[in-house]
Amino acid sequence: MNAFDFLTNDRVRNPEEGITMMLDKGMGPNMVEDFLEISRSYVDLAKLGWGTSAIHERELIKYKVDTYLSNDIIPYPGGTLFELAYIKGKFDEFLVESDKLGFKAIEISDGTVDITPKERARIIREVKEVGFMTLTEVGKKDPKKDHHFTAQDRVKLVKLDLESGADKVIIEGREGGKDLGIFNGKGDVKEDDIQVFVDNLDINKLIWEAPQKNQQTYLILKFGANVNLGNISPEEITALETMRRGLRGDTLGKVNLL
Amino acid sequence: MNAFDFLTNDRVRNPEEGITMMLDKGMGPNMVEDFLEISRSYVDLAKLGWGTSAIHERELIKYKVDTYLSNDIIPYPGGTLFELAYIKGKFDEFLVESDKLGFKAIEISDGTVDITPKERARIIREVKEVGFMTLTEVGKKDPKKDHHFTAQDRVKLVKLDLESGADKVIIEGREGGKDLGIFNGKGDVKEDDIQVFVDNLDINKLIWEAPQKNQQTYLILKFGANVNLGNISPEEITALETMRRGLRGDTLGKVNLL
Amino acid sequence: MNAFDFLTNDRVRNPEEGITMMLDKGMGPNMVEDFLEISRSYVDLAKLGWGTSAIHERELIKYKVDTYLSNDIIPYPGGTLFELAYIKGKFDEFLVESDKLGFKAIEISDGTVDITPKERARIIREVKEVGFMTLTEVGKKDPKKDHHFTAQDRVKLVKLDLESGADKVIIEGREGGKDLGIFNGKGDVKEDDIQVFVDNLDINKLIWEAPQKNQQTYLILKFGANVNLGNISPEEITALETMRRGLRGDTLGKVNLL
Repeated sequence: MNAFDFLTNDRVRNPEEGITMMLDKGMGPNMVEDFLEISRSYVDLAKLGWGTSAIHERELIKYKVDTYLSNDIIPYPGGTLFELAYIKGKFDEFLVESDKLGFKAIEISDGTVDITPKERARIIREVKEVGFMTLTEVGKKDPKKDHHFTAQDRVKLVKLDLESGADKVIIEGREGGKDLGIFNGKGDVKEDDIQVFVDNLDINKLIWEAPQKNQQTYLILKFGANVNLGNISPEEITALETMRRGLRGDTLGKVNLL
Repeated sequence: MNAFDFLTNDRVRNPEEGITMMLDKGMGPNMVEDFLEISRSYVDLAKLGWGTSAIHERELIKYKVDTYLSNDIIPYPGGTLFELAYIKGKFDEFLVESDKLGFKAIEISDGTVDITPKERARIIREVKEVGFMTLTEVGKKDPKKDHHFTAQDRVKLVKLDLESGADKVIIEGREGGKDLGIFNGKGDVKEDDIQVFVDNLDINKLIWEAPQKNQQTYLILKFGANVNLGNISPEEITALETMRRGLRGDTLGKVNLL
Repeated sequence: MNAFDFLTNDRVRNPEEGITMMLDKGMGPNMVEDFLEISRSYVDLAKLGWGTSAIHERELIKYKVDTYLSNDIIPYPGGTLFELAYIKGKFDEFLVESDKLGFKAIEISDGTVDITPKERARIIREVKEVGFMTLTEVGKKDPKKDHHFTAQDRVKLVKLDLESGADKVIIEGREGGKDLGIFNGKGDVKEDDIQVFVDNLDINKLIWEAPQKNQQTYLILKFGANVNLGNISPEEITALETMRRGLRGDTLGKVNLL
């Protein structure tokens, strides 16, 4: 039972909605456990960011992966590690190693490298068939390259990935949340761009990377408590959950819990 | 005995001065203990920010509250949780639950909701009579609403709270410290506003929320090592204490320890 | 063996190169151990920032120092503590206490106080003779004072320190990395200034304080995976190592590991 339980309701949600994806960029094993002790209920996916898994000992990664799994959290390696495996021609080894380490999801992205649409579709299908939860990401990590994409372009890419079998499509925001995807150089949400997504897609199929508080607030007020959000830093997990529930000034009285 | 103890003096202060209020926005239980192991002497009040307490298990909150108390630190739930209880008509339950969980202070604020001056005065008196340390906060969480208040307005509100029995009045700065209260949009201190406080109030009765380093530096250089400061993040507690004592470049040779 | 070891190579480097200096500004003892459990291989020097060591118990500092040493990391107290000892006429006690606590390096700086070149040279020689690793720092902590120095001035000061026997010279960047040394007010690298260093010095003799990600990226792309970097916060140690190895989008395919 939670403290002050007469002041708030649990979020009611189906497994497709209200997802929080956390960014673990190298937490120590005890910190993961201590952190989950208090906030395990508020994380659904844990991304071991970009290539960080590849510089830590296998036993440590397995231990952290097990810790996440035993708390009902799905861990997965960052998309950049997939990209590196792909350009090195080691995609199959990557899948085998991910499985051996216990990861249950794979992210397919082209944030830095180039992959043809046909190749991308084939990879999505393969990852799905092997049995991983299949995440893809739309957007480039270099703002100069990312600026070539209109919101309409992004919508098309999302649709292609979903048609190929992706479970969720992540909208790139990086760790910083600036000058990329739906965010301008100051980190504010580009509202017109958001509308293009709303008009053309099932928003529940998306996970918005939204590392900054103003971005989280905007998306919660726009889409409700159960919007899917990602790249949340561990120390912000509790704060985000309070925002979803109207327990912080920014959203108090402005969100409806079902 | 501290390392290098021949290089610095303890701060001499009375209990009314030199207060450091820390913002705990969801630390795990082990992290709290580990953090207090090294910096227990430098925290006086620990705020479990806004509504965060309400999404964690009662046993965990009690454990953390006990940990703070056994280190001579006074824990209290954030003002937003009080506001939520107030508008839900559950203020009495809120006080009972706060007491059961072990909290020793209560913060009364109207950062998000509206409370009449008469009601506010009544609540302050009630919290005080029940035996809690009684903190109030002046300022709105939405910058647009907060901008309606002049420094003179804030001074008046502080005086009213003190007359009603508040032990300390907190000047709102939020976690970000921008575009609110005494801070402009860049997070710099509005010096003219500060002067209005100085001219009209006993500064020792205030706790300035000052999450950013430049704000802490300004207030220490203006008011001395023993200015009351709040919304300090856990990882900045040691840094703040060194600033108070002239052990960092920003204040070295510029503060006098009594 | 690391996870995904078929995707990356260890950095090959000699002890003079590829140094990462971490800024510990008051970590608890368990956090240090947990953090080193996962990233011990990626830290070479641990600075207990400015005067932080002087407000913690001797036994705790010794414990943390021992922890660093047993992980092959060289701990040292911040330069500001040396400066304080110097102006108080307690330099000798400072060296004795540093040794007793187990520190293996000393940083000599004049970021806040003034020291004549002759004095500085004498101190460098003394620290070296006593057997400490001898670090010096060039730059002022107050931007107004620091702006008086041209890149040419800094190069001259570096050369003097090296001639006096300094093992490495740190280029001041502070914890913030803005408006100081090689960084402009936005935290971007002043490329012309960097070139002055390149043209006149052995870059391996420098440690660049570069707390921000864009600064780390710039310096890695300019000087390679093994550039010496400092003032890295603990939670960024893993991220920095992935940037050095091309395991993050910013450097993927752009760094050569020897």
